[in-house]
This record gives sequence, C-alpha cells and structure tokens, in this order.
Amino acid sequence: MTVLILTCEEDVTADMVVVHLNASGVPVVRLDPADLPGGVALSGEYVHGSFRGHLQSAGRLVSIAGLRSIWVRRPGAPAARAPQSSAWLTEESSQALYGMLRGSGARWMNHPDAARQARHKPWQLRLAQDCGLPVPATLITTFPQAAREFAERYPDLVVKPVSGAHPQDPPRAVPTSRVAPDTDFSAVAFGPTLLQRRVAKRADIRLTVVGERMLAARKATAADADPDAVDVRFAPGDVPWRPAEVPPRVAEAVRSYLTRAQLAYGAFDFAEDADGMWWFLECNQSGQFGFVEVETGQPIARAVAEWLAQPGPEPGARVDDADASVC
Amino acid sequence: MTVLILTCEEDVTADMVVVHLNASGVPVVRLDPADLPGGVALSGEYVHGSFRGHLQSAGRLVSIAGLRSIWVRRPGAPAARAPQSSAWLTEESSQALYGMLRGSGARWMNHPDAARQARHKPWQLRLAQDCGLPVPATLITTFPQAAREFAERYPDLVVKPVSGAHPQDPPRAVPTSRVAPDTDFSAVAFGPTLLQRRVAKRADIRLTVVGERMLAARKATAADADPDAVDVRFAPGDVPWRPAEVPPRVAEAVRSYLTRAQLAYGAFDFAEDADGMWWFLECNQSGQFGFVEVETGQPIARAVAEWLAQPGPEPGARVDDADASVC
Repeated sequence: MTVLILTCEEDVTADMVVVHLNASGVPVVRLDPADLPGGVALSGEYVHGSFRGHLQSAGRLVSIAGLRSIWVRRPGAPAARAPQSSAWLTEESSQALYGMLRGSGARWMNHPDAARQARHKPWQLRLAQDCGLPVPATLITTFPQAAREFAERYPDLVVKPVSGAHPQDPPRAVPTSRVAPDTDFSAVAFGPTLLQRRVAKRADIRLTVVGERMLAARKATAADADPDAVDVRFAPGDVPWRPAEVPPRVAEAVRSYLTRAQLAYGAFDFAEDADGMWWFLECNQSGQFGFVEVETGQPIARAVAEWLAQPGPEPGARVDDADASVC
Repeated sequence: MTVLILTCEEDVTADMVVVHLNASGVPVVRLDPADLPGGVALSGEYVHGSFRGHLQSAGRLVSIAGLRSIWVRRPGAPAARAPQSSAWLTEESSQALYGMLRGSGARWMNHPDAARQARHKPWQLRLAQDCGLPVPATLITTFPQAAREFAERYPDLVVKPVSGAHPQDPPRAVPTSRVAPDTDFSAVAFGPTLLQRRVAKRADIRLTVVGERMLAARKATAADADPDAVDVRFAPGDVPWRPAEVPPRVAEAVRSYLTRAQLAYGAFDFAEDADGMWWFLECNQSGQFGFVEVETGQPIARAVAEWLAQPGPEPGARVDDADASVC
C-alpha cells in the first residue's frame, strides 16, 4: 500500500516527511496535479460494477485501490503546467483526478471537503465555542452601527481578515492589527469586517495536532514588546519557540474540534493571557510546521509520516480494485 | 423559523417554490449573495461561548438561528455586484456569509460540501456502482493506448466531458457525442477523456428526488431517431416527458446513493434500454426541474417547498441563538 503526496516540486516540509517514510520502507508516490496531463497520467475503468484506476508519475504506476493514504500538502492547480493550459482543462483534470481519488477509500490528510469547510473562520469560531475553547469576543459585520457598539463594549480591539491570505499571486498574508480608539467604522458597510477583543498575551501558542498526537510550542512575549505588535508572524524579536505542555481541558476540546471537523491535521493558534488561559484564535488545517520543528526539535514530520504510513482501508472496503495493469 | 433561498434575481424555478411556501404561510427570505455587501448585510457576534447572527435583505432582518432550511439554488458569487468588486472582497464576503450559515444548524438543500463532492463524475460513477445501479462501461483516461483497447472491447462509444458545463460566461453545455469507429485516440494524452459504452436506448429517464419523494419522467426515443443524437438535451423531436413508475430496485439504490452523498435533492439521468433496464448516466445535484414539471404536471416545486418547510433544528440544538436584535 502506497502513500500519495500531492504537492509542488519545491516543498521542503514534504521532503522532511518523505525522508521518514523512506526510512520506514513505506512506498511513496509524490506528484503535483499541475503536471496532469503531461508528467502525470491517469486512467480509470468502470466495468461490471467495479473500478480499476491508476496514476502514473515519473514512470511509476500506482493503483488507486493500492493507496493507503493521501496527503494534500501544497498541490498546484491541475493542468497548470500543461502545454495548452486553460480553465476548462484545469476543470476536466481536477474532476478526473480528485473524482477518482475521492472514491478510493484511502485515508486523507485532509479530505478536500473537510479542508474547505475548515477554512471558514466564522465556522471555526462557532465550532471552537461549541467544543468549549475560550474564544475572544468577536464581531463579523457589515453594519457600521454594530461595529461602533462593539467597540464601546470592547475598547481594545484588533481587526483581521475574515478569510485567510490575500488572493494575490503569490498570496500575501494580511497581518492582524490593532484598532485605534477613535476609528470611524463607516467603511464596514463596504466589506465584512472581523473585530476581536485583543488578548493581552504573555505568549503565543502553536498547537500542532497530527491524528491523536499533540505537539504544542510556546513563544513568550518579550517584556518590552510593543503592544501594537499583535501578530506573531510579523512581530520582531528573537524569543524562540519552546515545547509546551497541553492543558488536559484544552486537549479534550481540541480533540473534539478535529473530530467534528473531520480533520486529521490541524495547526491551532492560541494567545496565552496572564492567567495562563489559552484563547482560541484559529485552526489552520494546512498550517506550516517546519519552523516549529526546527526551533523546538519536536518530531512533527515523523508524526505526519507515521499517520500516513498506517495501514490503508480494510480488504473488502468500498473500492474492490486489484493491482492489475490496464494501461 | 424562516426558509432562506440563495439565488439570483431572475429564477422562475425559485419563483415556483416561493409561491408554494407563501401559500403555506412559511416565512421566506430570498437573496443573492452577489448583493453582499450592499443590498444584503450581515452581522454575527461571538461572545461568552455563544453566537448571535443576522442577515438583512430588502429591509428584512432574519436571525441565523431562526433559519429552518437553506436552499442553494443559483446564487451569484458573493460581492459580485458590490460597487468595488474584487477577488479579495468576494473571498471575504463568501467566508463571512457561508461561514456563518455553515454553523447555523439549518437543513441544507444541498450542503455546499456535499454539492461540491457530488459534481465529480468519476466519484458519481463509483458511488452508483457501489449502490447497485447499472453503469455503462466507462473509461476516463489520459493514456491513448488504454482508449484504443477500450474501443476494441466496446466499439460503440460516446464521449462526454469529465466535468459538467464549459466554464464560459455564461457556461455552455457540452453535448455527449458518438465516437466514430476509426477515431485516432492520440489526443487523449492532452486531456482526460471520458468514453462510455453507448446504451441503445428506447427512452430517457429523468428521476427527480426531493428528500424521500421520487418523481420519475420518461421521454420515449422516437422510432426514427438518429442514433447519433445521443444527448437528449440537444436531440430534436417533440416526444414529451411523461410520468413514469420507479422500479423498486432502482428506488432502493437511489435512496442509498443520496444518503451516502448527503444530498437532499438530486436529478438522476438514466438511459432505458430495450430490456427496460435503467442505466445510470449521472446525478446532477442542482438539476433543473421546471421543464419536467411543466410537461408532466408532477408537483416537484411543491415537494421542494414541503421539504424546505419542515421544522428546523430542535430547540437546544447546536446554535443557541435567539431572535434578538443586535444591529
């Protein structure tokens, strides 16, 4: 049974995981959907009530029924590198590839539908609340009056995008910023705006969860930190990430979150306040983990490799393919 | 409890359903996400572990917790009609709107994730096989040699797109066509190609399923029909659609299909052969039904209205909002 990794060519995080898979002797096929058709080829046959499908990449042929797991890392858009690329060819290639893989019975990290749902921040906040994680008071609105009233109740606010990165090419991260006390909220009417009570934090927490494994890292806020530097991704300073313990109640809530979200992988960001409370900021279903692993020495790549290497679907599971050659 | 309909302004099919909902006194809010922000406004507040959200359209304010069901008909892209529209504003507005609705607890026809999955034809074919529906022998491939071998085994083939309509503006339906006997399959390498054994049909079947209700229509193939006119959408002739009985085994398989696909609505296309066998061609999760209702008199719009009008989530369900005014 093979592990399939969908990612672009230059992906050192995927390289780290492949090293572990290779060391344990688990077969791996790594390909970029951008190379379909071309460097990547596929074929699937539906005859007499059963399916037999194959992928080919770099001369290797793998049966779709022989996939134990699929890691959706940083895949390119299907057909993006085809000689005559077009929106139509991307749509055809995407449906062909993911349509076959969706019927495969392999375990996903993460399933495309779960991944898509998990990107919705309003949904994340609701789920986090439901699972018992503390969420800083938040408003998402296009009503200027609602924003004004919220700012009266919570005078110390930050503003951040509702969605993630700005859809440029390459995408650009939009920093979380503090809201000035005298802000005029009229412009809220022109686009949904996310306002959140600023947590006076003493540390940032990155909790990486891989299946059942939880690996938390903590980056203390420098004593002389500028209170306007709310976004750890853009904050100056050289305080390192250090391994941290996960409080049992947080662990339980996070487990419930990922189960309900149907995610095998999630990178949670929390702000730790002066009482040691972890405030939920977001869960990124495709969050980077390389920087945490490098600074803390935590074996995240190995945990990912181990999850991917677990046995695939049971014999007799949904797809009853065999490793026959049809191409 | 209110029914929310997401669709564009000119949608006579939605009009038909609204007539029935109005007649039964069920509150309805109909809006186009293209008008957010602008004609449509939203606000959602996450405070003390609970969520209170509202939508406003045409001067009406509706609580998100007060939604019993959401019908995703033909919605425009969020922010498409905003004064300063952009990809970024569409992304922000989409995440805000659908992110709140996804956490609402309302019943969906159809849930966006189920709808997206259901569009993948390779996945449809696999699921139909699994549910016991007869599927004509099908090949989806980028291997010219696989196409040649398939055409030797099944000399009478049709070719159709793997995905649905061509992504033009407006989208264009791509007809299913017969494959000539002397076809050179070399070009298959340049894009995934779907080849399928042609069913020598004596009728087309459209089976519209709304929740538990099944409404089948049959359009007999004219005795003098051109065998090259395989696609009923483009076939000439004036044979009407007529109501038909659903064979019990088909009904059972279709029920299983929709349950596993998590769809509340599906429009199945079958080809009926000379033995009366219904061959699965596809299931369109957003298939039009107006033309069937008009020709057969079957009460499809009423069935949709009745499904949407069913009571919403139980009190105490996931979202514990009240109909309070925050805006």
